[in-house]
Amino acid sequence: MNQVVEQPTASAGRRARGGGGAARRAERTAVKFEFARYIERNIPNLEILNEEALAIIEANAETVLEEIGVNFVDNPAALDRWREAGADVQGERVRFPKGLARELCKTAPSSFVQHARNPERNVTIGGKNLVLAPVYGPPFVRDIHGGRRYATLTDFRNFVKLGQMSKWVHHSGGTVCEPTDVAVNKRHLDMLFSHMTLSDKPYMGSVTERSRCVDSVEMSKILFGDDFVDQNTVMTSLVNINSPLTFDPIMMDALEVYAAANQACIISPFIVGGAMAPVSVAGTLTQVLAEVMVGVAYSQLIRKGAPVIFGAFVTSIDMNSGAPTFGTPEAAQITLGAGQLARRMGLPYRSAGSFNGSKLPDAQAAYETANTLNIGLLSGVNFMLHACGWLEGGLVASYEKYVMDADQLGVLHRLAAGVDMSENGQAMDALREVGPGGHFLGCAHTQSNFKEAFWKTNLLDYKPFETWDEEGGRDTMTIAAKRVEKMLGEYQAPAIDPGINEALAEYVAKKKAAEPDAFM
Amino acid sequence: MNQVVEQPTASAGRRARGGGGAARRAERTAVKFEFARYIERNIPNLEILNEEALAIIEANAETVLEEIGVNFVDNPAALDRWREAGADVQGERVRFPKGLARELCKTAPSSFVQHARNPERNVTIGGKNLVLAPVYGPPFVRDIHGGRRYATLTDFRNFVKLGQMSKWVHHSGGTVCEPTDVAVNKRHLDMLFSHMTLSDKPYMGSVTERSRCVDSVEMSKILFGDDFVDQNTVMTSLVNINSPLTFDPIMMDALEVYAAANQACIISPFIVGGAMAPVSVAGTLTQVLAEVMVGVAYSQLIRKGAPVIFGAFVTSIDMNSGAPTFGTPEAAQITLGAGQLARRMGLPYRSAGSFNGSKLPDAQAAYETANTLNIGLLSGVNFMLHACGWLEGGLVASYEKYVMDADQLGVLHRLAAGVDMSENGQAMDALREVGPGGHFLGCAHTQSNFKEAFWKTNLLDYKPFETWDEEGGRDTMTIAAKRVEKMLGEYQAPAIDPGINEALAEYVAKKKAAEPDAFM
Repeated sequence: MNQVVEQPTASAGRRARGGGGAARRAERTAVKFEFARYIERNIPNLEILNEEALAIIEANAETVLEEIGVNFVDNPAALDRWREAGADVQGERVRFPKGLARELCKTAPSSFVQHARNPERNVTIGGKNLVLAPVYGPPFVRDIHGGRRYATLTDFRNFVKLGQMSKWVHHSGGTVCEPTDVAVNKRHLDMLFSHMTLSDKPYMGSVTERSRCVDSVEMSKILFGDDFVDQNTVMTSLVNINSPLTFDPIMMDALEVYAAANQACIISPFIVGGAMAPVSVAGTLTQVLAEVMVGVAYSQLIRKGAPVIFGAFVTSIDMNSGAPTFGTPEAAQITLGAGQLARRMGLPYRSAGSFNGSKLPDAQAAYETANTLNIGLLSGVNFMLHACGWLEGGLVASYEKYVMDADQLGVLHRLAAGVDMSENGQAMDALREVGPGGHFLGCAHTQSNFKEAFWKTNLLDYKPFETWDEEGGRDTMTIAAKRVEKMLGEYQAPAIDPGINEALAEYVAKKKAAEPDAFM
Repeated sequence: MNQVVEQPTASAGRRARGGGGAARRAERTAVKFEFARYIERNIPNLEILNEEALAIIEANAETVLEEIGVNFVDNPAALDRWREAGADVQGERVRFPKGLARELCKTAPSSFVQHARNPERNVTIGGKNLVLAPVYGPPFVRDIHGGRRYATLTDFRNFVKLGQMSKWVHHSGGTVCEPTDVAVNKRHLDMLFSHMTLSDKPYMGSVTERSRCVDSVEMSKILFGDDFVDQNTVMTSLVNINSPLTFDPIMMDALEVYAAANQACIISPFIVGGAMAPVSVAGTLTQVLAEVMVGVAYSQLIRKGAPVIFGAFVTSIDMNSGAPTFGTPEAAQITLGAGQLARRMGLPYRSAGSFNGSKLPDAQAAYETANTLNIGLLSGVNFMLHACGWLEGGLVASYEKYVMDADQLGVLHRLAAGVDMSENGQAMDALREVGPGGHFLGCAHTQSNFKEAFWKTNLLDYKPFETWDEEGGRDTMTIAAKRVEKMLGEYQAPAIDPGINEALAEYVAKKKAAEPDAFM
């Protein structure tokens, strides 16, 4: 697989400042580990909607924007911007002449590079690419030893370390879990510092308050240099739309700060179908498209050309209990359809993930997750947040499920690579050599290809029953717990310039000292 | 969902003989249960290979048949047939002038009806349809109470009952497990009797010896009537090819008996990639196509127009241990590619299933299964054997996994139904009624659609953590065990004409008495 590169060590690369002996020592002692480049699809997407259906949904979305409109709440500046752009503003309600929002979206790039501090970890988001990032947002963690409990900063750092060590995970993510033992107004500093120092993969910025977005930009400038951040995208951050059709001021603050700084945002309707959107797939797609068009258009009012992603977080609902449900066919159809709508807008697309509603990393969790991962790949998703570690409807980040899912992400890489139709791939020599009744294990073609012929798991058990039984008859969760232990044991931090490390630590300390802890 | 029909009771229908009071009593007391019609896809297939790749594989397959050929072992009559058809026969090796095999395949139907004794359970195999049948062949069973043990006739009957009760399972299957407590030379009689009396869904015939195929036809004639069986397909049976490129005499016996009787066979290369076929996807597809073309052509030499299915049983291999591996990306690519090749031949296609290599119905089992089920749907599979219950590489039929998988089959139904683009599906009224910041749960559109809006699980747990925890924190396997118990407890046999029942029992008894038990 040509995407897989053995990566001896990470280094701060072109952005190194000083580069002292500590960095060199770290390089010498670093464990070698593999990482995979982001997926570049060589297979088609599944186009579930035909041209007529797509045209209906697009026309309906324009009708929604013209007749119903959206609310920009507590945000007079946004209302002014919309008025100026030609929208009809009454109170907080903004209505759009047909075509206006879509026209404004045209300046958004179809693809952009998000830089990592290690340039080999840079990702290009858009086109045929798929970038995988871990779970985002859970207040709880679960592991086989401690069960379910509130997440702490130690957990957060552990999940960042697992991400750095995971071959098929391209992105360090954002709030991999909520470090609930740190004050709400300060935890973003610890989260950013962890991503920046424990990983050399790209990361996400804070979105929970305007000043925290500013901190994210400032710390990125320390890491990458001021000029570099001005001219390049180094963060992709998550801006949820308060569906239906509502843009709240905190999320708009984040979008405004990041778009102005040329940093990327995912504009993502947050849909529990039947609650925040109609119970039907076509109705939900209409609303998603309307909401994303407004969000993307707004980003372009802030700064033309600012990188944005067409997001769709979709789950269905259990009509008996009201619980969100995952890995369901309706969610699959919305994920597939939204991908088509995103491609027609020429925008990168974010959706899917390791979604499930199970309380344990068991069969339910895996069915629902695999349903979603497969559909995500075939939907043409370009950025998959929550690609590993999600449990219990997103309330829990699971250690064991993280490594289970991360292993399955390798399946997506290989499937997406498509079929090798080279002469070697055609294997006519093997067929001639072996012939009827023969065996391919020993033939020359097998000997020269077996190392790379098949995707290899780092986790799943292929042992014969007897061996497995003698070893204790362990289930996948138990095996995964061992792997978590091994990975965290072997983790070594990627080298970082000590001057940068110190400057980041100083920034965090200074900001923390500047105001009292707040826990809400 | 228009495929789902509430089915009050089964009856022997037009083929009833006599129709005594027992049958009427059985009808009156039968439990009502739902069944779903086979899937009629309203979504596209995933076409992973382009025209050029398909043409290369097809040309290579012709080269394989012309240059290498296949062996028909211990089968002089077959060699005569091939000689007469224009093939080059030397010893047991048969080589084919280019185009000969493909030309002979053209008389095979692209679609056929397999009749069930309850006509409402008839299935049409081919076209855009997908018929789901349970696991086939495991010598062991596993359940949460007794662990892993050799399967018995009681287990066999239990699995047939589960199939009859399972809404999304359309077909009763064949050797749902091996009843190892019955003599090898007699167990086919008990298996057929169980399918015929405990289920009213379509079933498979025996293939393990020529006389057992004859018994399958004879018993079917008792069940359906002689004329009906002569004129209609009432069995679909599994004919494996001994890959690479070998047609063994027992399997050819089965094909000959069934094709002559106008009964359907699946012509199925049995591939563990890297062992029975090249390690590459394109090489394996070439071999699969060559083998299937010969098998299908041979069926048409027996009887033009005999119904056959293009089969592909594919797994990859763990190159460290030699273990077959399931739910892998290479198997997915082969499954997708073989579907394209089958459609180009105008033949129904069999592949995929609830494949996995796990020893327990845990997360590994579910990831691997879900990968395969999803790809199976998108590959255009028309007949999916092993769609539920498969565990441990097919060595084990799992009670719990049967109901877990059977529940997931509902996901496939709904996904395949496509997106409702009717005015109701577009839901513009709902969007207008609710507006920005509102909630859809109470709106008129939701109220009138919520019952059918979302696929409903019969198994998975959507409860809040606290409730789930109070109830014992059960994993999916534990929950599934409860469902198995409930289903077997509620099972009632579909009504059958007592005269037919008696005639079948007599046939079984007579044949069993006619020869001593043999256990090999």
